[in-house]
Amino acid sequence: MKINGVHYRSIALNDDGWSVRIFDQRALPWELVHVQLTTLEQAARAIAEMWTRGAPMIAATAAYGLSLGLREDASDAALQKGYETLLATRPTAVNLRWALDEMLSAVKPYQGQARIDAAYKRAGEICDEDVEINRNIGLSGLPLLREMAKKKSGAPLNILTHCNAGWLATVDYGTISAPIYMAHDEGIDIHVWVDETRPRNQGALLTAYELQQHGVPHTVIADNAGGLLMQRGQVDLCLVGTDRVTRNGDVCNKIGTYLKALAAHDNNVPFYIALPYPTIDYSMESGDFIPIEERSAREVTHMSGRKADGSVEEFQITLSDGANPAFDITPARLVSGYITERGILKQVCNGESDEPIFMADVA
Amino acid sequence: MKINGVHYRSIALNDDGWSVRIFDQRALPWELVHVQLTTLEQAARAIAEMWTRGAPMIAATAAYGLSLGLREDASDAALQKGYETLLATRPTAVNLRWALDEMLSAVKPYQGQARIDAAYKRAGEICDEDVEINRNIGLSGLPLLREMAKKKSGAPLNILTHCNAGWLATVDYGTISAPIYMAHDEGIDIHVWVDETRPRNQGALLTAYELQQHGVPHTVIADNAGGLLMQRGQVDLCLVGTDRVTRNGDVCNKIGTYLKALAAHDNNVPFYIALPYPTIDYSMESGDFIPIEERSAREVTHMSGRKADGSVEEFQITLSDGANPAFDITPARLVSGYITERGILKQVCNGESDEPIFMADVA
Repeated sequence: MKINGVHYRSIALNDDGWSVRIFDQRALPWELVHVQLTTLEQAARAIAEMWTRGAPMIAATAAYGLSLGLREDASDAALQKGYETLLATRPTAVNLRWALDEMLSAVKPYQGQARIDAAYKRAGEICDEDVEINRNIGLSGLPLLREMAKKKSGAPLNILTHCNAGWLATVDYGTISAPIYMAHDEGIDIHVWVDETRPRNQGALLTAYELQQHGVPHTVIADNAGGLLMQRGQVDLCLVGTDRVTRNGDVCNKIGTYLKALAAHDNNVPFYIALPYPTIDYSMESGDFIPIEERSAREVTHMSGRKADGSVEEFQITLSDGANPAFDITPARLVSGYITERGILKQVCNGESDEPIFMADVA
Repeated sequence: MKINGVHYRSIALNDDGWSVRIFDQRALPWELVHVQLTTLEQAARAIAEMWTRGAPMIAATAAYGLSLGLREDASDAALQKGYETLLATRPTAVNLRWALDEMLSAVKPYQGQARIDAAYKRAGEICDEDVEINRNIGLSGLPLLREMAKKKSGAPLNILTHCNAGWLATVDYGTISAPIYMAHDEGIDIHVWVDETRPRNQGALLTAYELQQHGVPHTVIADNAGGLLMQRGQVDLCLVGTDRVTRNGDVCNKIGTYLKALAAHDNNVPFYIALPYPTIDYSMESGDFIPIEERSAREVTHMSGRKADGSVEEFQITLSDGANPAFDITPARLVSGYITERGILKQVCNGESDEPIFMADVA
């Protein structure tokens, strides 16, 4: 990913070899704030308060968070406590638990400095693997975009996305953005409708920022607008990320995704999910069982913005109380396909076994 | 309608007998600003810039606006010019043209002062008729709410609404709010989920304010949240207003309505429209022909809010460009019924003739 032309990852070790640099995504797009994480508690806070967010980035931050914790206390008790602290930060994404379990397996055989070294090694690998996964999601999705763009005979390919599943949500590339950037880079004319994504506005703030930095034409719209755009034929493809896909193919993603999937289905617009394969939780039968995070109502009743004088401030936008469920479930029946690093899946589960059915096998 | 316990209409003649008082709805809920309209141009501006809004209120404001214009110049030429100026303010609602045509018929036979008198008389009648229409919409809808509340055996009846179709959108009562207030007043336990309604936030600002003033329990939610609430069984009924219903029953309403109708249909939640019968445009075959207003992108990229110091200011909320279509079309197939002052309609058109089919006749 590039910010003002400089290549960054969303999370990286500092030159000291142990402290961790993330961006405070709450300050974007107004300001690029580098944050140094030096303790497990900071990492936990950064996840819970959404300085950093997105299922893969939560996983990477938790992995380094556990490493930071072990650096202070490498005992079994501290390891277990740290695991639980980090696991409790956000309930919905499956990637968090996956990364913490990976870390646990990696460090358990060791004690003391060897344990700390093993932790940093595995955290680094988790990040590198995430980059490679996202790059391969891009390669899986690229032929689909090429194919769809051909049918537009010169007109821009209009993609609608919700929330942020770009590089800010991952270590690099992004799940939905990897194929978009690759297609854009090879000259395909792409335009992205960016759902604002209330209440935290990840679309208007983060996705729009990313696309701007990469030079991809895009337009921010109210979350309400996507239905009309699809009615009018102004959307060729919906492409969103996910925090967890269950065995039956149900998709948990940012609140509002389900509404767009319904509109896509009603207007014959393909609706694709881009995700790392490990986001599929084969242990969970359907979306009915996914815990839906209930976040603070203040995220609905207040928001931040930039004033005329350039400073950023929080302001109140209603006098009433709010409710703030953060995710919803898009039933598998509304999903056209799942773009993963292994290829595009038609179904995530092939009947009895946990093997997916690939789109190529269907065609 | 009551504001701090005092009864108001949303529009009224001042004591001088000719100037017109409305509220600047852009200041709500933070401040109750009375605006005096003294010219046709002011009335046109109040409609176009949405100091006042809602299909019936636009009609009433235009009617008085034309009266104000005639007061300055009662000639045929001025009448025609005023008609056109007011008609051009907002393109989507059918009520605006209806009210202006009513005014034209009423004043055409007269000249000079007699024309002015006829204008004020008809404008006053249009307002009184609107009040009576809305009261009767309430009486039509009340039995439905009573029936649904019974099935909840003591739990609150959860109604989801979008945008503002309350008294601020009409001269008094409101279309969706008339039955809600009546049910609440007779002791039915009602709770309203209030869609924020981006980009202008009429729900979070106006509907929430109205419900608060009337003491009806309510919760503001992001427009994205309604789908999940319906998936969870937390919505018993959707109830929205409309700017125009076509002969086939398609419903044009604030952008985002269609998405809620899809979710209601997908979860077997009844989806009702509350409307004055004249909102049905029998001259238009289907929603495909309704002009959809495209409003300024600034409404998406900027918004107003109250700062910690209590002052209200405009904020920028994205660095990117926006698009801002203001309405969408909910196909008739997604509508359970149309609550009008004449009763609840199952279909707005009975085949060849323009007579509706009433719900009672279906049952």
